[in-house]
Amino acid sequence: MNDKQKKPQKLKARLPRGFVDRSAADIRAVNEMTAKIREVYEHYGFDPVETPLFEYTDALGKFLPDADRPNEGVFSLQDDDEQWMSLRYDLTAPLARHVAENFNEIQLPYRTYRAGYVFRNEKPGPGRFRQFMQFDADTVGAPGVQADAEMCMMMSDTLEALGIKRGDYVIRVNNRKVLDGVMEAIGLGGDDNANRRLTVLRAIDKLDKFGPEGVKLLLGEGRKDESGDFTKGAGLDEKQIAALLAQFTIVPDGYKAVAVATSDPNRPDIRLASDAEAESLPISDSGARILDRIDRSAASALGLIQSVFRIAEAEMSSVRSAVDGNNELFDMAAMFKAAGYGPDRIKIDPSVVRGLEYYTGPVYEAELLFDVTNEKGEKVVFGSVGGGGRYDGLVSRFMGQPVPATGFSIGVSRLMTALKNLGKLGQSDVIEPVLVTVMDGDVEAMGRYQRITQELRQAGIRAEMYQGNWKKFGNQLKYADRRGCPVAIIQGGDERAEGVVQIKDLIEGKRLSGEIEDNASWREARVAQETVKEADLVAKVKEILAAQAEDRKRASDG
Amino acid sequence: MNDKQKKPQKLKARLPRGFVDRSAADIRAVNEMTAKIREVYEHYGFDPVETPLFEYTDALGKFLPDADRPNEGVFSLQDDDEQWMSLRYDLTAPLARHVAENFNEIQLPYRTYRAGYVFRNEKPGPGRFRQFMQFDADTVGAPGVQADAEMCMMMSDTLEALGIKRGDYVIRVNNRKVLDGVMEAIGLGGDDNANRRLTVLRAIDKLDKFGPEGVKLLLGEGRKDESGDFTKGAGLDEKQIAALLAQFTIVPDGYKAVAVATSDPNRPDIRLASDAEAESLPISDSGARILDRIDRSAASALGLIQSVFRIAEAEMSSVRSAVDGNNELFDMAAMFKAAGYGPDRIKIDPSVVRGLEYYTGPVYEAELLFDVTNEKGEKVVFGSVGGGGRYDGLVSRFMGQPVPATGFSIGVSRLMTALKNLGKLGQSDVIEPVLVTVMDGDVEAMGRYQRITQELRQAGIRAEMYQGNWKKFGNQLKYADRRGCPVAIIQGGDERAEGVVQIKDLIEGKRLSGEIEDNASWREARVAQETVKEADLVAKVKEILAAQAEDRKRASDG
Repeated sequence: MNDKQKKPQKLKARLPRGFVDRSAADIRAVNEMTAKIREVYEHYGFDPVETPLFEYTDALGKFLPDADRPNEGVFSLQDDDEQWMSLRYDLTAPLARHVAENFNEIQLPYRTYRAGYVFRNEKPGPGRFRQFMQFDADTVGAPGVQADAEMCMMMSDTLEALGIKRGDYVIRVNNRKVLDGVMEAIGLGGDDNANRRLTVLRAIDKLDKFGPEGVKLLLGEGRKDESGDFTKGAGLDEKQIAALLAQFTIVPDGYKAVAVATSDPNRPDIRLASDAEAESLPISDSGARILDRIDRSAASALGLIQSVFRIAEAEMSSVRSAVDGNNELFDMAAMFKAAGYGPDRIKIDPSVVRGLEYYTGPVYEAELLFDVTNEKGEKVVFGSVGGGGRYDGLVSRFMGQPVPATGFSIGVSRLMTALKNLGKLGQSDVIEPVLVTVMDGDVEAMGRYQRITQELRQAGIRAEMYQGNWKKFGNQLKYADRRGCPVAIIQGGDERAEGVVQIKDLIEGKRLSGEIEDNASWREARVAQETVKEADLVAKVKEILAAQAEDRKRASDG
Repeated sequence: MNDKQKKPQKLKARLPRGFVDRSAADIRAVNEMTAKIREVYEHYGFDPVETPLFEYTDALGKFLPDADRPNEGVFSLQDDDEQWMSLRYDLTAPLARHVAENFNEIQLPYRTYRAGYVFRNEKPGPGRFRQFMQFDADTVGAPGVQADAEMCMMMSDTLEALGIKRGDYVIRVNNRKVLDGVMEAIGLGGDDNANRRLTVLRAIDKLDKFGPEGVKLLLGEGRKDESGDFTKGAGLDEKQIAALLAQFTIVPDGYKAVAVATSDPNRPDIRLASDAEAESLPISDSGARILDRIDRSAASALGLIQSVFRIAEAEMSSVRSAVDGNNELFDMAAMFKAAGYGPDRIKIDPSVVRGLEYYTGPVYEAELLFDVTNEKGEKVVFGSVGGGGRYDGLVSRFMGQPVPATGFSIGVSRLMTALKNLGKLGQSDVIEPVLVTVMDGDVEAMGRYQRITQELRQAGIRAEMYQGNWKKFGNQLKYADRRGCPVAIIQGGDERAEGVVQIKDLIEGKRLSGEIEDNASWREARVAQETVKEADLVAKVKEILAAQAEDRKRASDG
């Protein structure tokens, strides 16, 4: 036997992969940010509600975030009664369970918000963590798109409340019924095509990244990237691809989008027509105005389907859902206009897909438009910080009745990163504590230091007595320096006998010993260290802190 | 095959056992409470730091909360690299890992606080949950008991900041070295006796519940409870039991505690002596004063050990640790006195044991002293809401060097329950939103309702537009009533054409339709419903809300 093997190994201190500790600065920034978000949601009439971190796996099961690995993606374990439990991977599925479980006690519409950690059992990567915080708001029991419209306005108000300027963000809105309807119309309906539909959704989601030509390849045979890796496509034919791409302002030559008058002046029939056809159609005036306001391509797919697939008007019921989705987008656009939210804040945009399969109607996404430098040193648009949509099927999985719902989620750390980039967080700097140093270790002296510290605290001053090994006084000043303490209090035996203390202005002291200061009057007004009576301690410390605050103000003012 | 079996089962909405959803009132109360706690800790110079919910199991492994089930107690699962991870069961073990992992970057003493969920994989029971929140503060790298004393003072200040009156709480302090030393002195030292020591700790922890007679049985042969169940005891003999019980003011007949003068006037040698012996000993004056201040029994065990076990002064080194512990208690008592914390706030009390095995020095506990009625209808003292102690071994498990540390934990829901009992939480009632009702579903009307709602919000008024099925107007008023909305806004087509709205004072309306109001002048000054121009809407709603606020104030004043 080997002696080394018998020796107990020293335990290695390390975090599991994909998890991180959070620093004071991050925690304070998140608290500041979530407090502002909460205020907006409360203002909108939402109340907090929270669920625990565990759910039974079957309550989450059907809607895993990554459909490629239906049994992975979540952290699961078996309870002692053999039932499988999982840590929540979002805050929506648990809310659906909560509503269904308490359906008789809950007053609908049920308007709630919640912030909390969610978990993904995925391979961690740079910036990809297995635990992160989401902040959600949902309205359950709201069948109309006015609820979705409200969510979009609330997202817009939230971003502005956080200090993000108009023009630096946009809320993009689409409707899944349009895309789902188009897919059905071009022969991708039914359970058999579920995987193909998913491939189509993912391809369209790559529009930002690969452009229309790349998406075309992904919808067709497939796409080879720069490294030579080949991604198999959805295998659609040219007609099908054209119908799908019609949503993204890729209007084929010889066609244009027209708004045909109907009995309802607010809901023209938007379609793609050839120039010749357009001449003979009763063009709607209000429709034309609407086309100016919203991205006209949103509606053009329906017209294109009719044109290309030669679907008779009477048979259009097979794509009724797409028409409904389109009308819902028009309704939402009208509501945004009425409530004063122009396209500089909320914009209809057909390229919004949202990854999760459970959405059934409007989907919306908050995007930050300013540039940041990515890890490769490239300038990129900051991008999405949250989004959501209508999920009418999620609560009713548990119920015998339909329960419509809509809501969205904010990615807390991503939004925090954005706000830090904009300099909108952490401005309210926390002042580090005044340090009461320890010169003697006997009980009487210690008691005196404690009392001095308490006096400072009672006067509202952040203060601490040095708690390390007091015998090396140099360590105490080094500690004060590294921690950024503004003031140190010193009292040796002689001073104690006289009832006085030394007060050291550490910021002023740093300046005196360091940089040359050109503003002589500041320096004259302040000394780095002075001796005062114990009774005057609090007043003097307050005076120094006030002078330091004024210096900071001068410095930041210029 | 059975048709019924083939039908997909409807999913059952239920939470795993031992987990609960949190209501708006609870969330708001906890937020209010933790904000106040945070303020005290920040004032003391502590900074926030947080760890994730998972740790590698071996980082927690040695210190499970329930030593009977060393491999249970925590929720564990295997990562895809086969390493075991567990959800944290407290906030101390993860902090120790965090400090050890970042030891080179961390400036000691490291003073931090954190609030977060912890998990226990235990059988749930009434009031016993498997997920609950703790709020911890710790100083790492602080070798002296002044750090422990500070923790006790901070607990005291925290309870008072939360509105708990002096006299309604006490911080009780003991030192594990005393008990550990006594156990060693009576022959319970060494690894072989680890289980027996645990039985002794648990027996002593039951002092409140079973009284000294019950504890005596648990330390001896065992104890039979009312139901006839027998709990096996620690099997100690009478002498050993007497030595242990000497700590709990159970001073044997014919003995008394005396303070014998030593070279240090602040540290007399406290011992139990027979009346005759006491005559011949050089009694210390300051010691006698100290005996008056602290609970004299704390020190008596040492004297008793000497007396009963006839240990010569020279051999007392075997219980040096107990003497040290005793001296530390004296030092802490002196510091409490100097800083102005009398025994009405912090009290030395030898019956404080604290369950966890990792404590190595001072232990302390915050106890609420007022009576509450338990589930059996009995009046009981509310009891402990948190506590902690020194854990010098926990960080150094990972390190080649000793790292002293001390800290405590508050049980957030328990403390919240206590504050609710005292009426100290939820006083800042959140006003429910003004409800903008929906009379018409066309886009133009909807847009108008949205705009009205936004106007109210922009004026700082909590407001929402009805998001349920608007067609049943009765449902909208029922919703407003159940939700407790203060005001409803109504605008039908005619009113819209005229540019006016109806404003309904729902609180006043309730009173008019319900109780008879004796204060006629109030009623005269207010009408339950009136019609105003759209431009005057915000001002009128503000006026009604202000009147309601005044009514609430009158009601609570009288």
